[in-house]
Amino acid sequence: MSDTLLLILDLAGIAVFAATGALVGVRKELDVFGVMVLALITGLGGGVVRDVLIGAVPPAALEDWRYLVVPAVTSLLVFAFHPAFGRMEKQIMVLDAIGLALFCVTGAVKAEEAGLGILAAAALGLLTGVGGGMMRDVAAGRVPVIFRGELYATPAFAGALIATVVHHNGYDSWWYVLAGGVCLIWRLLALKRGWSAPLPPGLDHG
Amino acid sequence: MSDTLLLILDLAGIAVFAATGALVGVRKELDVFGVMVLALITGLGGGVVRDVLIGAVPPAALEDWRYLVVPAVTSLLVFAFHPAFGRMEKQIMVLDAIGLALFCVTGAVKAEEAGLGILAAAALGLLTGVGGGMMRDVAAGRVPVIFRGELYATPAFAGALIATVVHHNGYDSWWYVLAGGVCLIWRLLALKRGWSAPLPPGLDHG
Amino acid sequence: MSDTLLLILDLAGIAVFAATGALVGVRKELDVFGVMVLALITGLGGGVVRDVLIGAVPPAALEDWRYLVVPAVTSLLVFAFHPAFGRMEKQIMVLDAIGLALFCVTGAVKAEEAGLGILAAAALGLLTGVGGGMMRDVAAGRVPVIFRGELYATPAFAGALIATVVHHNGYDSWWYVLAGGVCLIWRLLALKRGWSAPLPPGLDHG
Repeated sequence: MSDTLLLILDLAGIAVFAATGALVGVRKELDVFGVMVLALITGLGGGVVRDVLIGAVPPAALEDWRYLVVPAVTSLLVFAFHPAFGRMEKQIMVLDAIGLALFCVTGAVKAEEAGLGILAAAALGLLTGVGGGMMRDVAAGRVPVIFRGELYATPAFAGALIATVVHHNGYDSWWYVLAGGVCLIWRLLALKRGWSAPLPPGLDHG
Repeated sequence: MSDTLLLILDLAGIAVFAATGALVGVRKELDVFGVMVLALITGLGGGVVRDVLIGAVPPAALEDWRYLVVPAVTSLLVFAFHPAFGRMEKQIMVLDAIGLALFCVTGAVKAEEAGLGILAAAALGLLTGVGGGMMRDVAAGRVPVIFRGELYATPAFAGALIATVVHHNGYDSWWYVLAGGVCLIWRLLALKRGWSAPLPPGLDHG
Repeated sequence: MSDTLLLILDLAGIAVFAATGALVGVRKELDVFGVMVLALITGLGGGVVRDVLIGAVPPAALEDWRYLVVPAVTSLLVFAFHPAFGRMEKQIMVLDAIGLALFCVTGAVKAEEAGLGILAAAALGLLTGVGGGMMRDVAAGRVPVIFRGELYATPAFAGALIATVVHHNGYDSWWYVLAGGVCLIWRLLALKRGWSAPLPPGLDHG
């Protein structure tokens, strides 16, 4: 994957995750700076943790000013124009799914480039995808989406694993669309149809 | 800024943040060791995250015994003498403002010395200032102060930005007093007068 | 301590902590992937933070596939066979105490090997021991066990301090059993007899 493409996908993921963080902040009636901080945590949290774990410090989020400006501007736009989003919970979930798909691909690719094995790179892609949203939810006092009994981690891990294999074998960039697409479509279908993964046996789930 | 001055300001910030963590622990009726752990997290959390992000590992908190002893002793003093503090919530907020002012300055200076750009160094000063308190509140099950609709992040960012510019241009140490002072006075005025930043448009805040 | 012994103890600690995370997930009625993610966070969280703080990145959890497979398989076994555990809260606490004893020893040894001083190495052993469980509890919306007014941090710090001294002086491996044993037995006795550390003076604890 070319560096330019990786940067664009990374910034796109940061923007949509930042938008989900900003929307959560708006719903909590935070002020403009609280909204911005929550957006920055959500957009940059997963990637910063990944960079720290692969030893890439200072992380990209601090070395490249675009990584700070993109989520900051996104949060201001959401803050100003949020009524246009209408009923927001649904929009948050769709944006979150797009961010998840973008981050599980870029996170896995960066981890593979850092020399990790396939399983570890896929795990780190998963962590990049779910990390920012988990920080957003913990900071805002919500149950992290990953622990709400929906299919969330599985699509992300599938996308990250495909992206790792694609990168490891040097396949054409277009194959990354497959990796992200599998994650995105699987997650959106799970949302729409209420799919969930198997629940613990022997408990009364009624 | 001389290394000695930086160390003294850093330890002072650690002590006051540790005191806020210890007071939260006392109010939650934790035992003496729970109070101490919460004080250590609050006092050292922001600086440790900053050190990790700029690649300064092991962080100062683990390399210099004073960074462990100062918050530990502070927490024991608060534990033993807390009734003298009287109505504690107000004291916590004032100490917290002092710690915020100290940390946004020392954090920004350390980040600038590590070679970060001005915007990133200021952002890391902000993170140093708010990180420990955010960990304290999340660990103790409270809404982080930064997300309570008060002016908190803005004064910290302003102080960090001034400190970054002062350090970048090699101004005299006394200018750091201005940086910390802007943060402290702005935050204290916001507390006293109930200032808040703009809220999302179009919501009924009544 | 030989590297093989250290690895075995580390994986044993990861397995039992992963089991506690999986049991919390089962009790929260998470699906199989939520249970696995919570198990991975609990089993690997403390060690990953320790590795980041001593500059050992990528952390062992990402460099060695066994560190991912052990907690993943553990979580699946717990998920499938959890009814055999019967009344689970008690089992969680006992497994947690075993994991605490193992991690405070291995964490302190790794920190000492990384060149930290005795106090810092013991503190990092404590953090390794309590970190994963704290992340488990925060992520699952529970009050961290360390803040529930039970003796928890003290036995862990005692075990970590003994292990640090043993390693620093190059004593025989069997002395580590003493370090872990002190932590484990102290913690189990505290659980059984309801021991707690001193509470803040002057509050009405009735």
